[in-house]
Amino acid sequence: MKKEVAIGIDIGGTNTIYGIIDREGNTLSEGMIPTKDYGEIEVFLAALNEKVRLALRKLNNKVSVEGIGIGAPMGNIIKGTIENAVNLPWQGIIPLVDLFRQYTNLQVIVTNDANAAAVGEMVYGGAKGMKNFIVITLGTGLGSGIVVDGKLLIGENGMAGEIGHTMIRPGASNRECACGRKGCLETYVSVSGIKRTFFKILADSIADSELRNVNFNNLTGRMIYNAAKKGDVIAKTAFDHTGEMLGFKLADVVASFNPEAIFLFGGLSLAEEFIFEPTKKALEEHLMDHYKGKVSLLPSKIDSQKAAVLGASALVWNQKENT
Amino acid sequence: MKKEVAIGIDIGGTNTIYGIIDREGNTLSEGMIPTKDYGEIEVFLAALNEKVRLALRKLNNKVSVEGIGIGAPMGNIIKGTIENAVNLPWQGIIPLVDLFRQYTNLQVIVTNDANAAAVGEMVYGGAKGMKNFIVITLGTGLGSGIVVDGKLLIGENGMAGEIGHTMIRPGASNRECACGRKGCLETYVSVSGIKRTFFKILADSIADSELRNVNFNNLTGRMIYNAAKKGDVIAKTAFDHTGEMLGFKLADVVASFNPEAIFLFGGLSLAEEFIFEPTKKALEEHLMDHYKGKVSLLPSKIDSQKAAVLGASALVWNQKENT
Repeated sequence: MKKEVAIGIDIGGTNTIYGIIDREGNTLSEGMIPTKDYGEIEVFLAALNEKVRLALRKLNNKVSVEGIGIGAPMGNIIKGTIENAVNLPWQGIIPLVDLFRQYTNLQVIVTNDANAAAVGEMVYGGAKGMKNFIVITLGTGLGSGIVVDGKLLIGENGMAGEIGHTMIRPGASNRECACGRKGCLETYVSVSGIKRTFFKILADSIADSELRNVNFNNLTGRMIYNAAKKGDVIAKTAFDHTGEMLGFKLADVVASFNPEAIFLFGGLSLAEEFIFEPTKKALEEHLMDHYKGKVSLLPSKIDSQKAAVLGASALVWNQKENT
Repeated sequence: MKKEVAIGIDIGGTNTIYGIIDREGNTLSEGMIPTKDYGEIEVFLAALNEKVRLALRKLNNKVSVEGIGIGAPMGNIIKGTIENAVNLPWQGIIPLVDLFRQYTNLQVIVTNDANAAAVGEMVYGGAKGMKNFIVITLGTGLGSGIVVDGKLLIGENGMAGEIGHTMIRPGASNRECACGRKGCLETYVSVSGIKRTFFKILADSIADSELRNVNFNNLTGRMIYNAAKKGDVIAKTAFDHTGEMLGFKLADVVASFNPEAIFLFGGLSLAEEFIFEPTKKALEEHLMDHYKGKVSLLPSKIDSQKAAVLGASALVWNQKENT
C-alpha cells in the first residue's frame, strides 16, 4: 500500500517552501522557490508545480497524495483566493485554487498563516485531541487561529479570527496600526509592538541599557529578549507591559470562546518566561471566577522553523477527517 | 398526520412559562406556573409536567411532540444542568435534563436565555437562513448568543458567548460588576449600565432633567428612554455613551467572528434610534476597513414578550435540523 501524504506549501514574500508530509508530520521531501523572482502568478505556479512533481517522482511515486494545503498571507479559505497581500508580488485578488486546477484534480485548500498554524497544532502538535482552542502567532503582527468544536472558525467571509485587530481601549489616543486604525492589540503585542513599548519606556526611564545604542529600525525582538535575560530593566519592563496587554485581551477571548487552551506560537513566544509569566498573571487577574486556573496557556509544540509547511499540510488531514 | 410541535419552557426567577409551538413559531397553547412557590426542584418539575400533559390533552393529542427546549439562567447545554443560578429557588447544580427522564423519553435541551434567543432568531426571526450571526440581549445584564456556521457556539464547557464580561479597558479604575471583577461591558451596556451612566452624567452636569427627582433604585431604562424622547439632554447623552461602548466592543466581536449580522434584543434595544444610532456610529468608526458598511446591526424580529418561550422551543427544531 502506498503511504498517504499531504503537500504543504507556505507562500511567503521572499520564499515559497513546500514539503511532502505524512499523517504523523514527518517530512519525506522538501524544497523551495524564490517567490519574489516571479512577477506573474501563472509562471510562479508552473515552476512550483514542476518542482513538486519532480519531488514526488524522486519518492518513486510510492506515496498517495491526499491533497494540497497552502498557507499564504491573506489566504481566504472560503473563496480559495489570496486577496490584496501587500507582501507578495501579485496584487489584487488571486484565484489560487482555480489556478491550480490545470495542474491537479486533488483538493487544494488555502488559508492564512495563523489558521494553518492552528490546524497544524491540532493535527501534529500540542492540541491533538482538543476540540476548542486558540493559537496566537506573535510575529511582526499578531495572528490568531481559532478552533471551535474541532473545526477552524472561518466566519461569513473567511476572515474570522483577527484578534490582533481587537482594540485596547475606547478613545483615539492610541498607537497607529498598519490596518489604518488606532489601538489594535497587535500595536502592543507583537515583535513590532514590543519595540514600540521598549522605546517608550526607554524614553521615560533614566536606567542604563545597552540598547540605548540601537536605533528603532535595527532593534529586534531577539535583542530585547537577550537584554532581558542579562537583567536589563527596561527590556524586562517592556515584556511585562506586553504580557499585561496580551493577558488582558485573552481574558476577553476566553469569555467569548470558552477554549480549553491557548497556545502562543513563534516570534515573541520564544522569549519563554519573559512573555508567559506576565501574560498568565494578567490573564488570571482578568478571568471570570469560574475560569480562574482552568484555561491552559501553552507554548506551541510545533517547531517554528517547520510550522508553516506543517500547518499547510495539516489542512489536508483536517479536511479529510471532517468530511 | 399529526402536527409536529416543540415544547418551549422559560424558567425565570418569578414565573416559568411554557408553550406548545409549531415549526413556524405559532403558539398552540401556553401557560405558566410560579417558580418561586416551589422550593424543591422535584416538586416544581412534577407540577410543570402535569400542566404540560394537560395542555397536550386539550389539543386532543393531535400533535406530535418533537422535543423539549428549556431556557434558564445559567443553563448549561453540554451538561444539561442549571448551575448556581442566584435568581432561582434551587441552589447548587441542578441536573435538569436527568430529572426530566422520569416524565419523558423525548430529547430535552437546556441552555441559557441568550443562547435560546439566538436560536429563536435563527429558527423564527430575522436570522432565518443566516449561518454566522450574533444576538446581544440588553436586559438587566448583557447576554450574547453566537451562531457559527449554523450552530450555537458552546465552547469547551458550555460557557462560550459571555461578551457581557469582556472588558472595556486595562487597569482597575473601572465599574464594579456583579461577576466580582471591574470594567465588564455589561456594567456600561445594559439597563443597569445605562442607569449608572445616567447618574454619573447627571452628577457632572447642571442641565435640567425631570429625572433629578428620581432615585437610583426607582430609575428604569424606560424612564431614561422617555426622557430622551422628550429632549432630555442628560438622557440622550447617556444613550450616546452607552452606544459608544457597545459599538466599540462590537468591532472586536466582528474582528473575532466575522458575522453577517448582529441583532440587538430586548430591554435597551427597544429604545430604537437612541441606542442604534450611537452604536452604529461607533461600530463603523472602529471596524477594520474591509468590514465598514458591511455588517448589519439589526433589531430582533422576535416579539420580546414571547421570545423566551419561542427561543426555548427553537432549540428543538435547531437540534433536529443539525442531526
